[in-house]
Amino acid sequence: MSIEILRQKIREKNNPTVVGLDPNLDFIPEYLKLKYYSKYGEGLKSAAKAVYAFNKGIIDNIADVVPAIKPQAAYYERLGANGVKTLKKTIEYAQKRGLYVITDGNRNDIGATSEAYADAHLSTINTGHDESTPFGADSLTVNGYLGTDGIKPFLNVCQNNQKSIFVLVKTSNPSSGELQDLKLENGLTVYEQMAELIKQWDESGKYIGAVVGATYPSQLTALRKRLPNTLFLIPGYGAQGGTAADIIGAFSNGIDNGIVNNSRGILTAYIKNGSHPSDFGRDAKVAAVKMKEDLLAVIK
Amino acid sequence: MSIEILRQKIREKNNPTVVGLDPNLDFIPEYLKLKYYSKYGEGLKSAAKAVYAFNKGIIDNIADVVPAIKPQAAYYERLGANGVKTLKKTIEYAQKRGLYVITDGNRNDIGATSEAYADAHLSTINTGHDESTPFGADSLTVNGYLGTDGIKPFLNVCQNNQKSIFVLVKTSNPSSGELQDLKLENGLTVYEQMAELIKQWDESGKYIGAVVGATYPSQLTALRKRLPNTLFLIPGYGAQGGTAADIIGAFSNGIDNGIVNNSRGILTAYIKNGSHPSDFGRDAKVAAVKMKEDLLAVIK
Repeated sequence: MSIEILRQKIREKNNPTVVGLDPNLDFIPEYLKLKYYSKYGEGLKSAAKAVYAFNKGIIDNIADVVPAIKPQAAYYERLGANGVKTLKKTIEYAQKRGLYVITDGNRNDIGATSEAYADAHLSTINTGHDESTPFGADSLTVNGYLGTDGIKPFLNVCQNNQKSIFVLVKTSNPSSGELQDLKLENGLTVYEQMAELIKQWDESGKYIGAVVGATYPSQLTALRKRLPNTLFLIPGYGAQGGTAADIIGAFSNGIDNGIVNNSRGILTAYIKNGSHPSDFGRDAKVAAVKMKEDLLAVIK
Repeated sequence: MSIEILRQKIREKNNPTVVGLDPNLDFIPEYLKLKYYSKYGEGLKSAAKAVYAFNKGIIDNIADVVPAIKPQAAYYERLGANGVKTLKKTIEYAQKRGLYVITDGNRNDIGATSEAYADAHLSTINTGHDESTPFGADSLTVNGYLGTDGIKPFLNVCQNNQKSIFVLVKTSNPSSGELQDLKLENGLTVYEQMAELIKQWDESGKYIGAVVGATYPSQLTALRKRLPNTLFLIPGYGAQGGTAADIIGAFSNGIDNGIVNNSRGILTAYIKNGSHPSDFGRDAKVAAVKMKEDLLAVIK
């Protein structure tokens, strides 16, 4: 029932928005970076500490507005082990503030290795006699190219720990069609076939959601019919060109049937506004409220 | 020309084997774990230190026999930030011993995020005025489901840094066919289409290799014809059932056209042999030499 936890938070906040915490170093105000560079030098450790301070500032300001955050693993890995530590601390901090945390990692492998990824990101592990939490997110994005052997270990961990995964179906990027849109002999496209696999794995939609880009509105609307019970995680709003009107198809059964990501539009609102850098959190909140209103104007 | 670096190491060692460093905690001898548990307690830090000691023991013993190692990111992430630090230290140590390092992470995303993954695993980044190396592997496995937007950023980083990626084509697991084997209207299967995309991205095979499972020998042989210049990374030998005879199709143009992975068969040879746990490194070397002979018996 893990996805129900997210649906409930969406209903409580009356807002189907997830803030993508993709801390490109260019997004972080100079004063924050200098604070840590002057203390620890100019390496990855300082950068990781600046990112954590930035994330906290964002989370503190948006926690009352949105139900969830989505840290993008790539930007934390780019800062090495220090960055990955910031990922864990960010997850903990956001959860303390009541947010649902979806780690965006598109992880994928098979068998014991998929299980290791699931344990890493969604569960606890035993080392010796102790139990430890490596990352402890609520949800993880997963790539389903390897089929059932790749997904079942994730699904088991989700069922045992009330966690969830989101499987890539139709991604928001221009070239997503190169493989995903190709027609199969059975009449389905590759991405429709992926949707059918999700249906086999978890027709109820209790543990598995689907990633469907805002940039392909007619495909999104058709996928809603194919997967009536599945929560959609929707990237591509804002910077990538998707609008509120484009994502309405996901929400035909109510506001808690999808969650729309925005990263840059919220994290860098202070740059766009020409505000003082120390107002990055305030401007993020204003942008999040504006996005909420933009979405609610089209979702009945 | 990065893949040429790996080809050269394969020729020098006369051995197309990569040792998968998948440090499941069950593989690590108890005495090694106790050494660190008694010092640092039973948490992730101790486990990560035990893994590093184990990896060093394996690397010291196999460095003269094999050209490459392939650490599986999932097992390091499972130990949190400490585990990820062990991944970096393992990469550094193996490179010092002359080994080519392929991080098995199946990473995938688009645009700036793919670039962040590529920087993280294969390049350096600027924090402030300093340049830092997050992980610094020689190669990374990548999932191509998102198309060109997902691969180009990796390819650029490879070209600028003489690094490489291996893109999943036909994976070794039983359910890989659920999506990968489906026939498209154009007559190709999904995995053949993926091979065609690799050809578009890097027909020369200088920077992009292909992951093709040992467990599907006829598909492997056919893919060799479709991708004559591409180095194949071949999982599925040993524990998953693939034999030396099954992978011969990859090597029709010579020994430096493929690299066959073995993880468990080498890491846990001491358990299978009933040896004293402190002989894990020696037994790993014996198993690696035996695998080399097994492969060379079929590769002309």
